[in-house]
Amino acid sequence: MPDDNVTIVVFSGELDKALAAFNIANTAAAMGMNVSMFFTFWGLGVIKKGGIERGGKSFMQWMMGLMDRGGASHLKLSKMNMMGAGTRTMKSLMKKYRMPSLEEQIKLAKDQGVHFIACTTSMALMGLEEGDFIDEVDELAGAATYLGLASEGKVNLFI
Amino acid sequence: MPDDNVTIVVFSGELDKALAAFNIANTAAAMGMNVSMFFTFWGLGVIKKGGIERGGKSFMQWMMGLMDRGGASHLKLSKMNMMGAGTRTMKSLMKKYRMPSLEEQIKLAKDQGVHFIACTTSMALMGLEEGDFIDEVDELAGAATYLGLASEGKVNLFI
Amino acid sequence: MPDDNVTIVVFSGELDKALAAFNIANTAAAMGMNVSMFFTFWGLGVIKKGGIERGGKSFMQWMMGLMDRGGASHLKLSKMNMMGAGTRTMKSLMKKYRMPSLEEQIKLAKDQGVHFIACTTSMALMGLEEGDFIDEVDELAGAATYLGLASEGKVNLFI
Repeated sequence: MPDDNVTIVVFSGELDKALAAFNIANTAAAMGMNVSMFFTFWGLGVIKKGGIERGGKSFMQWMMGLMDRGGASHLKLSKMNMMGAGTRTMKSLMKKYRMPSLEEQIKLAKDQGVHFIACTTSMALMGLEEGDFIDEVDELAGAATYLGLASEGKVNLFI
Repeated sequence: MPDDNVTIVVFSGELDKALAAFNIANTAAAMGMNVSMFFTFWGLGVIKKGGIERGGKSFMQWMMGLMDRGGASHLKLSKMNMMGAGTRTMKSLMKKYRMPSLEEQIKLAKDQGVHFIACTTSMALMGLEEGDFIDEVDELAGAATYLGLASEGKVNLFI
Repeated sequence: MPDDNVTIVVFSGELDKALAAFNIANTAAAMGMNVSMFFTFWGLGVIKKGGIERGGKSFMQWMMGLMDRGGASHLKLSKMNMMGAGTRTMKSLMKKYRMPSLEEQIKLAKDQGVHFIACTTSMALMGLEEGDFIDEVDELAGAATYLGLASEGKVNLFI
């Protein structure tokens, strides 16, 4: 049923927003909806491999990469960056209340069939290649692919 | 008419975004649409009671509460935090042009039948309980409730 | 076909989010969808004329204008403001990879028939008038106009 499509543009690379995106995605998938996540701009950081081994890139690309140093376990909270402790606090609270970590939510999403798309336009801009991403990524595509999916559903969020 | 449903995820706890959310919610309600607002994460700060009397919470929870010290009258503008004067400026301008304050918009929304939902997952993470919220809150629920409403409408925003 | 409507609320005044908004808008327009962009709050900065000649405004309005000094070529990246070099880096990368600048994307959007609406409520708050905006703006209107368009489509984003 096309109307059951859910699409989420993950533009932000911050931990709190990524958690919100995956909470919605995983709940929707558990309800039987078809969910696609389109990772673009800083959101590419959510699906980057943890390391930063980025040899062979130009200095500017490296600098962009540095400012956006990726991998789900390095994401910072949008409001608490200045304190640093904030991200650790949230991770501790999540552990205390036995909430799944972002890494666990990514795996759960994959198990439930959530479709992961990395935005090719942003990849070019940030000097990222297919091999830079975690294996959960299904497809490299642009905004037209996203819009094709979005126009077949009603729950379309930009996070 | 289900297609007239409007849902707004209020993720942000900042004054400007809260004002935008309520402006859309109140306009939609005045046009006869069914509006639901799902307050999650920092957005819970929008519907918290003004005070910060949070005795009995753990230090980490208290710290989260401190960083997110709630109540609509304490919200800061997202771009102007560093200057402090910015929030006061905007409140003065709103008064000067006789625009309703956030508190007034919350009451108006309630009068117009806007449905307020507090996200239970975020509540657990932040150590918040039903009694921490203003009386306008109708329901405590999770993402499944939100998605049920969102999938019956076409205007679904994440703010 | 009403279901092909796309609406984008451009709330943010930051370069990265504006680029994302126009990338989606221009792709949708190229696919034959009807696209409307509703510029509100800081998003008004995206469609403001480059200069800041704002004589005759009150100090508070001037201060708001100062903090939101507009014109597409002055927009900053949301995550890199503190470094300053970040915005220049991104503009260089965009040039290197022959990606259209924001100014070019605005013109392209206009050529493709994307509808530009400036939010009258935000204009009043920020002391902006019709003459403050670039010629591409089609209409000055409020949230009711936006909601009328949004309720006729399924892809409705808040950026």
